[in-house]
Amino acid sequence: MGNQTIYFKNQPRIIAVSSIAGTKECKGIIGRYVETALSDDMFGESTFEKAECKMLSHVIDGAITNAGLKRDQIDILVSGDLLNQIISASFAARDFSISFLGVYGACSTMAESLAVAATFIDGGHANYAVAATGSHFASAERQYRYPLELGTTRPPQSQWTVTGAGGALVAKEGDGIRITAATLGKVVDYGVTDVNNMGAAMAPAAADTILAHFRATGEDVADYDLIVTGDLGALGSRILKDLTWEKGLDISANHVDCGEIIYNVIEDEFQGGSGAGCSAVVLNSYIHSKMMTGGLKKVLFVATGALLSTVSSGQGESIPCIAHAVVLER
Amino acid sequence: MGNQTIYFKNQPRIIAVSSIAGTKECKGIIGRYVETALSDDMFGESTFEKAECKMLSHVIDGAITNAGLKRDQIDILVSGDLLNQIISASFAARDFSISFLGVYGACSTMAESLAVAATFIDGGHANYAVAATGSHFASAERQYRYPLELGTTRPPQSQWTVTGAGGALVAKEGDGIRITAATLGKVVDYGVTDVNNMGAAMAPAAADTILAHFRATGEDVADYDLIVTGDLGALGSRILKDLTWEKGLDISANHVDCGEIIYNVIEDEFQGGSGAGCSAVVLNSYIHSKMMTGGLKKVLFVATGALLSTVSSGQGESIPCIAHAVVLER
Repeated sequence: MGNQTIYFKNQPRIIAVSSIAGTKECKGIIGRYVETALSDDMFGESTFEKAECKMLSHVIDGAITNAGLKRDQIDILVSGDLLNQIISASFAARDFSISFLGVYGACSTMAESLAVAATFIDGGHANYAVAATGSHFASAERQYRYPLELGTTRPPQSQWTVTGAGGALVAKEGDGIRITAATLGKVVDYGVTDVNNMGAAMAPAAADTILAHFRATGEDVADYDLIVTGDLGALGSRILKDLTWEKGLDISANHVDCGEIIYNVIEDEFQGGSGAGCSAVVLNSYIHSKMMTGGLKKVLFVATGALLSTVSSGQGESIPCIAHAVVLER
Repeated sequence: MGNQTIYFKNQPRIIAVSSIAGTKECKGIIGRYVETALSDDMFGESTFEKAECKMLSHVIDGAITNAGLKRDQIDILVSGDLLNQIISASFAARDFSISFLGVYGACSTMAESLAVAATFIDGGHANYAVAATGSHFASAERQYRYPLELGTTRPPQSQWTVTGAGGALVAKEGDGIRITAATLGKVVDYGVTDVNNMGAAMAPAAADTILAHFRATGEDVADYDLIVTGDLGALGSRILKDLTWEKGLDISANHVDCGEIIYNVIEDEFQGGSGAGCSAVVLNSYIHSKMMTGGLKKVLFVATGALLSTVSSGQGESIPCIAHAVVLER
């Protein structure tokens, strides 16, 4: 078996974070923790895509500034997003004169970018790296589903793409949250074809990575204060708990899903939040804050991604999914 | 200034490669070197996208097999492609039970995936990794430009997206081509908006990375047997030579562009080849062969990418570009 779990012997650390979120998102639990709360989801831009890109630039800049650093001290920017050709990340990178590694992991991007950034730092190839991603409800809807103007009815198993972005400054040394290990996911496809049911599609990938992680490390679930998945939503979270329980791993007591907790129940979003911005915002506001203030000491951050496109779905393909896990310790 | 150039102290090596190319491509110089020459560009599939995905799977499998390895010995697959949500790479990864890192660097993907794979190997996180990418003329045309059925006239500054794929097996040890360093590119945008003139758009990014590489390493152009860019084409190559010469670096004697050499002049492709498959096929067939047989000892492989989308162009944006360089030594 190939090696899925990697250990960072030099323990790169997150020395600063930045986050931004939309109006709907800030009504919920993250509202108290997010750095920048938007009053206008267009962020002063003329298109949804430009607003998404601006949010991403905002948190990249924020993470650098919050670390007390300047742009020219950063060695690598690792970023991606949900839009075709990851234009939010590429155009954001244009604003910064920093080496850029574009990644695509759909909603797993926050974990993938953190793992890649940590690997470059750990190997001595960089002193400072930024890992960042984001999403925008309106740009995702029109790319993946229908134009908002159509007013299409949303089915009860659907989730709501988070408008928001998060970024982390990963450094070789300094005070912060240590990244001690990562388990890189495999593509898992249980044959789900319902593009409105991402939670069901992604849950098997999350289960696969979590099971691989505990198998490789020999740790117990109780060693973690929190096992936090990215955007499975309420239904997907229940499926994940079932799938891991069936394999003899009971994560119920320690598991939380960013998509499940991000919105208030009174919001009209059915199963919860989704999108690359979902776990990025929750990690880089709420979870970061809880870790820095001592409420959480060890967290397994498992961001999940659905690797479909409108073309693959149109050609009758099911939805391949992936989940990457990163171990965060304070 | 952030650090753009990284040195691999453990010198990961390419111990095997695999390549596949379409009928038009195999009429040219690579025809004698490519592992699999397609007689049918559909590769027995019902859609262009599925054919592209199958080519990518074919070279991933080929690289593993040619190294005398089995799939379950591979630790990481690093791959991406030009299609929305990199579906060729994601769906190819579904066929292999290997940890998958999806990357997006447009036509720079071969260099980006090699650099990322080498970093994981160099840091001791993996023993074997596969870096692979590809493209298909017909899937790229209908996604980025016009459906083939329209019969749109191609302007003289245009290039032809290569139908082909290439993959490299990067290992911790073994006989092969050593990856000794890499210079990760920044996003460069000179304001070109002509989506038919990728060579002009990408040349400044190639110049930026090449100049940064020689600045950081202190090497001379003459230290390399070849400085090979990805898919600038004939016009882009001339612009690159001008731009570097203006900055005091004369690469004329050692420079070749994969896009410029891949097609015979009698083919109707104007400036030459492009696409992620262009540099992937040339590197993993022609250049690999020349290096293994002693014709080339040290090569700077600089794959270039245009990070636009139809949405960004439609919203009036210019074309941000990137180039990543990898040093290959035999």
